[in-house]
Amino acid sequence: MRHLLSAGDLTRDEALLILDTARELAQVGERSVKKLPTLRGRTVVNLFYEDSTRTRISFEAAAKRMSADVINFSARGSSVSKGESLKDTALTLQAMGADGVVIRHSASGAARRLAEWVDGAVVNAGDGTHEHPTQALLDAFTMRERMGRLEGLRVAVVGDIRHSRVARSNVLLLNTLGAEVTLVAPPTLLPVSVDAWPCEVSYDFDEVLPKSDVVMMLRVQAERMNASFFPSAREYSRRYGLTAERFARMADHAIVMHPGPMIRGMEISAEVADSARSTVVEQVTNGVSVRMAVLYLLLGGAIQGPGHQGETR
Amino acid sequence: MRHLLSAGDLTRDEALLILDTARELAQVGERSVKKLPTLRGRTVVNLFYEDSTRTRISFEAAAKRMSADVINFSARGSSVSKGESLKDTALTLQAMGADGVVIRHSASGAARRLAEWVDGAVVNAGDGTHEHPTQALLDAFTMRERMGRLEGLRVAVVGDIRHSRVARSNVLLLNTLGAEVTLVAPPTLLPVSVDAWPCEVSYDFDEVLPKSDVVMMLRVQAERMNASFFPSAREYSRRYGLTAERFARMADHAIVMHPGPMIRGMEISAEVADSARSTVVEQVTNGVSVRMAVLYLLLGGAIQGPGHQGETR
Amino acid sequence: MRHLLSAGDLTRDEALLILDTARELAQVGERSVKKLPTLRGRTVVNLFYEDSTRTRISFEAAAKRMSADVINFSARGSSVSKGESLKDTALTLQAMGADGVVIRHSASGAARRLAEWVDGAVVNAGDGTHEHPTQALLDAFTMRERMGRLEGLRVAVVGDIRHSRVARSNVLLLNTLGAEVTLVAPPTLLPVSVDAWPCEVSYDFDEVLPKSDVVMMLRVQAERMNASFFPSAREYSRRYGLTAERFARMADHAIVMHPGPMIRGMEISAEVADSARSTVVEQVTNGVSVRMAVLYLLLGGAIQGPGHQGETR
Repeated sequence: MRHLLSAGDLTRDEALLILDTARELAQVGERSVKKLPTLRGRTVVNLFYEDSTRTRISFEAAAKRMSADVINFSARGSSVSKGESLKDTALTLQAMGADGVVIRHSASGAARRLAEWVDGAVVNAGDGTHEHPTQALLDAFTMRERMGRLEGLRVAVVGDIRHSRVARSNVLLLNTLGAEVTLVAPPTLLPVSVDAWPCEVSYDFDEVLPKSDVVMMLRVQAERMNASFFPSAREYSRRYGLTAERFARMADHAIVMHPGPMIRGMEISAEVADSARSTVVEQVTNGVSVRMAVLYLLLGGAIQGPGHQGETR
Repeated sequence: MRHLLSAGDLTRDEALLILDTARELAQVGERSVKKLPTLRGRTVVNLFYEDSTRTRISFEAAAKRMSADVINFSARGSSVSKGESLKDTALTLQAMGADGVVIRHSASGAARRLAEWVDGAVVNAGDGTHEHPTQALLDAFTMRERMGRLEGLRVAVVGDIRHSRVARSNVLLLNTLGAEVTLVAPPTLLPVSVDAWPCEVSYDFDEVLPKSDVVMMLRVQAERMNASFFPSAREYSRRYGLTAERFARMADHAIVMHPGPMIRGMEISAEVADSARSTVVEQVTNGVSVRMAVLYLLLGGAIQGPGHQGETR
Repeated sequence: MRHLLSAGDLTRDEALLILDTARELAQVGERSVKKLPTLRGRTVVNLFYEDSTRTRISFEAAAKRMSADVINFSARGSSVSKGESLKDTALTLQAMGADGVVIRHSASGAARRLAEWVDGAVVNAGDGTHEHPTQALLDAFTMRERMGRLEGLRVAVVGDIRHSRVARSNVLLLNTLGAEVTLVAPPTLLPVSVDAWPCEVSYDFDEVLPKSDVVMMLRVQAERMNASFFPSAREYSRRYGLTAERFARMADHAIVMHPGPMIRGMEISAEVADSARSTVVEQVTNGVSVRMAVLYLLLGGAIQGPGHQGETR
């Protein structure tokens, strides 16, 4: 594994290695040792063509906790706006000695193209409507922590699947890890290629709800809730929102997930979001651990020679 | 002391502890040991909903000098603009493991609300027209360094008191520390609640001036100097500006303070601003020491077990 | 050498010391020791009044590789926009304890003015159309690495000389180091003072081309390619662009340089930009080494006492 571009690229063993490594790193952190020397001397560049403070901070915290140097590159006001191509930006970062590049880009496939041009490790932090693999990994990590297993777990992913890189990455990863995913959305919010995805599809949230171990709500992008899809946000919320009433019909052991940021009252009610069975906050915590694991495994912290460690401590 | 939200929350002993700690840290810095390992492994988030490069850099320098990791979060272009609430942002930072959050916000009371939601230490770096306690602490530190004492010191605070969080925090802190504050401003630039503040009030700068040990000029916000308050900026400057002529009528030992950034020629003349009795530059230097002290005391650097130190060095 | 403000300030020995130091630092980096403790405890402020992600990242990477703390200050949305003068900003950074300030400013001469106000080292990272000395140093470093010498080297600098701080700094430095520079541009794109520069001038690229050991293409600023200078960008490209056809007429040993970001198809063709004789990517890599050398020499990393090292490790 040289890069992390798609959740679909991961074998079962690779995915489990990441989850197990994340668990170990989380446990080290709980023993109050928050700073590890593992990536000292490595430089991680956060190359963000789209704003995403949460994801950027999560990667930044993960890298710094392992003593890497972090350089933030926001495309706004950069040479990108002077017409520099992604390739030239990539070659520049490469030439400056970036050991890892975390990229967020509005174009599907940007991360994979970047990986062709740089020697360092590329981590896809969201590319267009394509993929967001570390989100899927932190979701899987959270499910395994809460439910004790992934194999055979019934997961409903609910909402705007069509525009969601989170949904796609989750479907691919959870399938690899043996969970059973059902996508729940109105036909207009499903991607045209959904028949080829390794999952079930349903238009009926109320039918899927009681059979699910995990209910993952996606953020509704209000600007897409226009007349072409739905008469109104309220109508959407009525049919696909996780209200307190629907929450009561979930299985007792089932959990509620959300990648954040949530719109309370839209796709999820405030009571549900704040209930003990909601994992929203844990997902954020686990995000840092999972990203530490990914950076650790990709940037080769594990295989540093003793000479390197000695000279840089 | 878990947070620093208001200068009014500090007991005399707590305030003096901060000032004494700042003094020690400043002295360590002068012995050319600029980097302390005290907060290694701790993460400080600068959560700035309003731009304030000076304050942000001061906190960033303070945290880094004690080896903390610093993550800057600017609300512009963040998920805040996607409608995320302060509470959700708080829970996110908390979940990512922020040990301290330094918040600047346009809403009075934002820091205190934040403190309800996070386990980490919250430092108020300015909330609306409410408070800016580290500014008051660095001002008190500067007065004590220059004048040798705070008890009984006569301090005039001059200018737009009404919109000034600096004024309010100074009044509260200086009162706790035994100084006597007189606010000097036209009635339109005084807050309606000023009668309840523990200080004197005067409309007549020339009367207060010669009796003051410290003259603290506030920045005039030109956009507020409109017809409703004053006929013109020039008229304001004539009555409440610290001109060279007024400067000559100050007591020989008296000092001039300003939180910066100054508008030379408006609230303060250039000669006065640059005179040896102006502490403007020292205030900036002292700001870093005071913020180091606050972060040190709040983030518990002092009470780390030896095991932690050992493993992270 | 207290500051680096102009390539013209450097003596031959100082320039060679920087290049030699850069070489040593680059070699240390190749031995996989990427992090040096040299500048631990020093604070470098990147004070950028103009956006320049490449240059800012290069300095940031250089400083961090030597364990300095880096604070980024972008003038957008700072107190600068509240009317703070460069002098007050300088005094503020100084007072906060900045050991080095890297400044990019739209006004020619800004770096030199800054140096009058601060005790720390000032590095000019581009001031108006005046100078960009670290660019010239990295260019000289790259030439020496590729050609084995600088003495007697024939260097053509081609394009918009008039608005180019890169051109001016290169002319001054290369002259000091014994190379022979010819500027190639239409009369409208030459500065009025060019007769006083220590170099040759030509309007005829095709005449100069085959005699050059180094062909340095400058970025064409399309907004300046208007009717007052040239009938069209295409016409400019035809007369002053480095096309594949021109490339074929260069001496076999000659190299092509460009400070980036390039506009492929405008001042340089894509084939030429990506050829093995193009040093564009090396220049970026060398930029980090040269900036490490400059910061190392200016911030006095070499003369730290052992006590300092001991206490901060």
